[in-house]
Amino acid sequence: MKGFASDNYAGIIPEALAAIADANVDHAVAYGDDRWTAQARDAVRDAFGAPRAEVFLVFNGTAANVLALEALLQPWEAVITTAISHLNVDECGAPEAVGIKLLTSEPHEGKLVPERAAPLVQRVGFEHAIQPRVVSIAQSTELGTIYGASELAELRALCDEHDLRLHVDGARLFAAAAARGCSLAEAAAGADVISLGGTKAGLMGVEAVVVLDPADAGGFAFRRKRRGQLASKMRFAGAQLSALLRDETWRRYASHANAMAARLHNAVRAIDGVTITQPVHANVVFAILHPTVTAQLQARFPFYVWDETSGEVRWMCSWDTGPDEITAFAAAVADACAATAVTG
Amino acid sequence: MKGFASDNYAGIIPEALAAIADANVDHAVAYGDDRWTAQARDAVRDAFGAPRAEVFLVFNGTAANVLALEALLQPWEAVITTAISHLNVDECGAPEAVGIKLLTSEPHEGKLVPERAAPLVQRVGFEHAIQPRVVSIAQSTELGTIYGASELAELRALCDEHDLRLHVDGARLFAAAAARGCSLAEAAAGADVISLGGTKAGLMGVEAVVVLDPADAGGFAFRRKRRGQLASKMRFAGAQLSALLRDETWRRYASHANAMAARLHNAVRAIDGVTITQPVHANVVFAILHPTVTAQLQARFPFYVWDETSGEVRWMCSWDTGPDEITAFAAAVADACAATAVTG
Amino acid sequence: MKGFASDNYAGIIPEALAAIADANVDHAVAYGDDRWTAQARDAVRDAFGAPRAEVFLVFNGTAANVLALEALLQPWEAVITTAISHLNVDECGAPEAVGIKLLTSEPHEGKLVPERAAPLVQRVGFEHAIQPRVVSIAQSTELGTIYGASELAELRALCDEHDLRLHVDGARLFAAAAARGCSLAEAAAGADVISLGGTKAGLMGVEAVVVLDPADAGGFAFRRKRRGQLASKMRFAGAQLSALLRDETWRRYASHANAMAARLHNAVRAIDGVTITQPVHANVVFAILHPTVTAQLQARFPFYVWDETSGEVRWMCSWDTGPDEITAFAAAVADACAATAVTG
Amino acid sequence: MKGFASDNYAGIIPEALAAIADANVDHAVAYGDDRWTAQARDAVRDAFGAPRAEVFLVFNGTAANVLALEALLQPWEAVITTAISHLNVDECGAPEAVGIKLLTSEPHEGKLVPERAAPLVQRVGFEHAIQPRVVSIAQSTELGTIYGASELAELRALCDEHDLRLHVDGARLFAAAAARGCSLAEAAAGADVISLGGTKAGLMGVEAVVVLDPADAGGFAFRRKRRGQLASKMRFAGAQLSALLRDETWRRYASHANAMAARLHNAVRAIDGVTITQPVHANVVFAILHPTVTAQLQARFPFYVWDETSGEVRWMCSWDTGPDEITAFAAAVADACAATAVTG
Repeated sequence: MKGFASDNYAGIIPEALAAIADANVDHAVAYGDDRWTAQARDAVRDAFGAPRAEVFLVFNGTAANVLALEALLQPWEAVITTAISHLNVDECGAPEAVGIKLLTSEPHEGKLVPERAAPLVQRVGFEHAIQPRVVSIAQSTELGTIYGASELAELRALCDEHDLRLHVDGARLFAAAAARGCSLAEAAAGADVISLGGTKAGLMGVEAVVVLDPADAGGFAFRRKRRGQLASKMRFAGAQLSALLRDETWRRYASHANAMAARLHNAVRAIDGVTITQPVHANVVFAILHPTVTAQLQARFPFYVWDETSGEVRWMCSWDTGPDEITAFAAAVADACAATAVTG
Repeated sequence: MKGFASDNYAGIIPEALAAIADANVDHAVAYGDDRWTAQARDAVRDAFGAPRAEVFLVFNGTAANVLALEALLQPWEAVITTAISHLNVDECGAPEAVGIKLLTSEPHEGKLVPERAAPLVQRVGFEHAIQPRVVSIAQSTELGTIYGASELAELRALCDEHDLRLHVDGARLFAAAAARGCSLAEAAAGADVISLGGTKAGLMGVEAVVVLDPADAGGFAFRRKRRGQLASKMRFAGAQLSALLRDETWRRYASHANAMAARLHNAVRAIDGVTITQPVHANVVFAILHPTVTAQLQARFPFYVWDETSGEVRWMCSWDTGPDEITAFAAAVADACAATAVTG
Repeated sequence: MKGFASDNYAGIIPEALAAIADANVDHAVAYGDDRWTAQARDAVRDAFGAPRAEVFLVFNGTAANVLALEALLQPWEAVITTAISHLNVDECGAPEAVGIKLLTSEPHEGKLVPERAAPLVQRVGFEHAIQPRVVSIAQSTELGTIYGASELAELRALCDEHDLRLHVDGARLFAAAAARGCSLAEAAAGADVISLGGTKAGLMGVEAVVVLDPADAGGFAFRRKRRGQLASKMRFAGAQLSALLRDETWRRYASHANAMAARLHNAVRAIDGVTITQPVHANVVFAILHPTVTAQLQARFPFYVWDETSGEVRWMCSWDTGPDEITAFAAAVADACAATAVTG
Repeated sequence: MKGFASDNYAGIIPEALAAIADANVDHAVAYGDDRWTAQARDAVRDAFGAPRAEVFLVFNGTAANVLALEALLQPWEAVITTAISHLNVDECGAPEAVGIKLLTSEPHEGKLVPERAAPLVQRVGFEHAIQPRVVSIAQSTELGTIYGASELAELRALCDEHDLRLHVDGARLFAAAAARGCSLAEAAAGADVISLGGTKAGLMGVEAVVVLDPADAGGFAFRRKRRGQLASKMRFAGAQLSALLRDETWRRYASHANAMAARLHNAVRAIDGVTITQPVHANVVFAILHPTVTAQLQARFPFYVWDETSGEVRWMCSWDTGPDEITAFAAAVADACAATAVTG
């Protein structure tokens, strides 16, 4: 039943489950004023080397991103992001639902290109035009690619030059840090606010918004409450997040998922009928297949077609993807491609 | 450490924890298209005797209420509720944040009074006036009181007479049904949409919006997504809710909490210095104490002052409140009152 | 055809019409960057003795009030106003449509009572509660009463004590200043932001938001544009407003309207069957009549029933109400009351 | 002082001024329930051959467009428009401010291209994706081009095929109808809702939203009020609009403006140093000039640079542009180009 549809299909890591059980004792103050949440916030600050950061736990990534952006925006300011960003195409208009306009730029390998983003900063101070204020990138990107240190530095420079702020959608920041072998802080270097994704990393309903400069966090607690994101029994979120961060548990799982994607990549790249379409940096492989092959494979292994037009598919590995599953799937890909080549 | 601050301070029931563990196998389709969520939705439909109802899981009560109301409202329509409702005073303006105006009415024993609500329906069709469309009540109320069958029938009649819809904020609907010894359907009789609260009943981040007429559910899935309330690993919410509903597990826990409140009520009502202020129907006791008594007690037992002006305090019992805790607390109340009477 | 329904039923003063005609020459920069608008802004600053004030022209009072409040509020902050305020009952939820929650207080003679408003400031800093930030009063009030200097001082003291800002809905500020024989600045003493109503004073689609501290005006121009309130041919609004302010033209017309209301009051107060219900400070008279009398009068003279329950009616005088109309109407009131008394 | 900056720089037509003066008699019911507004609504219905249409007057184009779109959208639905549309680039995010997401398509000569728009309709029914529902075009476009009958038919077919609605931003619909020599109905053929722009055609603060199917107009009156667009002294708007529509007064003025643009086009097209960039269909000419030429011309004649990068400028003609002004300006263009060529 395990497939390659999404890291959201996987369950939660054993450490998270144990943490929930361990936290299920006695009474704890509700709404985050408990020791588990305090510990989690401290652990996040440590992980980012940001002792002054404000950390807010929320339920999911949509909310984390929207609240993160609201913290950096006035109502008349806009966000520069890629045309393919989750924010733009997979949130059913959640940013716009709170009044946020997105200005989109065509990405390269899933990444925001500074030279294309810069011209979006225009008509500054002109009341007819929305005012760009935030650059929002995903690390790793929706295509599984990863910004390197110099790329992040360039984006930061872009922001500094144009008086912009930098938001990192870190729904898969753990994957990026594991792939680069760097710290979370390095993986999100230059960011002002980070959405740190626990769910895809193996937690249950846990995301954190990391506001590095406390001056940006004014009113965040109220905003979180108003947006329906203040968990009453927050201790269970805090406990999970602490477990994920403890001794870099995240790195072990994320590295594993990345390794599985690399293994898959290696196993299928040479198959006739498979065209790899994106660099494989993290825990996902994109490829173009013949529709017949896709259909045959989907009958046995769940995964998504990314682009109906081109036939590009997405294979996502998770913390619980096993090497045997890679082997079995790669074999199935090879078989389906061969059969289609014969009959096609 | 257990006290009487809130049912949000309690952990989760063992059945919920076990359900999370049991559901943590293999991969499951994300965003609710999994068998645990399907089972939970069916269990809710069964519990309400409403096979056509649409059921949507969300993360918390703020969101459940806001989404429930949005399902029943056009943008220019308003909600009639009590001045003390959670919706009005404890959501940091979450309804208004999505454009919903509340029209408030003074309650009697925490309940909406039809005779006071009816005059709020006025200026119908007049474009200068917000148009009342929904009556929203809490069952049980914020004061722990419970609407009986005839009261619900009167509210339904009010709605029918004035072309209004009825929303039941069931953050503590399980407590109400247990107290009345009735079904969930009877406890929310007449409702069009119900917010069914799992969290206070012993779950972790699980609330359900029950839309009894599927015609009211059009677009709800999109709204939920836009509002950041679509859980990716929803199976864990579904599993918990199923566990709570299975064999009316909820009734056992809710009845226990109610019994603890009754025991507390009996143990303190005659104490000189304690003035019980609300009927004790469900799992909470309200009383006025001398501030000195309150301060002494709060040093040992967490609970909240409900009204600073009058000195009214709130003692909430939970699924995990034990009889020994009641005994110990009642004794402490008696001691503190006696000591204050001597020195006061 | 002239009646007592509303000062919105009157046309525009001759000076406004002439100003429109005079401004209809050549081309002028659109969107307010023209000399007529500049002159109007200066005239407003002069009238309020506020050389640093920022002045924004908008189309109507709903928008003026909403934009004025937005300038003073964060999204999680609320407005204290009277239960009968135009803001609360006559805007079809326009404040809530942009996320603003109103906290209402029962007025005395239409005015906000500081002692009743103060308790609404509570739970400061508590994320579950909306945070009161602005007191909004109408000068003159919806009942035609006027805050005196000491009352305004008390409200300012209330604001200072509780870290609140003061908004004056001056839809009829000209009437108030004329009645008190004071300047506009004195009539709105203590205000942080004022909605200055040109329309009821005899203009056509002209209201001004006066932001006394420019620090509060940041982003206002963008907000105005986003809310659809930036007039392209703004010169015509500016020209009208300048005409109204020139040589205190407003005082002549407003004093006249007030005098007409006083005359009406004097003419009907002693009639058997007429119960005057509000102090007559400005340009309106409220009275309770027998419904039969009301119906007879409305057949000949337009006016509104203010309260269906009590039979209270509102008679509004305008800049163009003539003494003969007062005489005729008072006679009609006397006749109708007499006839009803006989047959009743 | 007259230049080519914008048709918003022009004053109002004499007929509008006379209509305002004529309507300034007696009292009239406020908020649109007056005979002038009724007459204007009838005149609009006649002009569009749509006796069942609902017509709503509002203050400006931003509001007309936002309200028109809201009438056709559910909160989770989106609008397809061109990347250069006024809606997208010149409203400071007004659509997004009310929750509307725009999906943009690269235009051809300013017009929406059906083949490019069609692929934006995807993921229908999928809750993660905003649901396209409305196509919004401008007639004439922001580049002064005009959709012909067959182009409108193709757009309508696109809408019918994909269950979309069609909105026409008719800020310059009069210009389009005059240019095509057709009726307003033909100029907006296929539309469900039209924003009919009075201001650019020579009125003062008058736009109309024409809802052709009354089923789409439910709640519009409430929405208009909530958005601050309900004029109290609406008779003056109604009177102006009636004057514009009477005997097709609009056609005379719009044809004149169009003729002036054609004259300008003819006068400058052959000048060395002028590159005309867009077809000249209506009342505007776009050209690329050397920046030095632009600067010299702007010192004497107001006009806007449309694209800083390419040096493209916009010359807009108005109802009051005179032939002498065209002659003088064309001569200045020729001189400036010649001088720059010599010294350049």
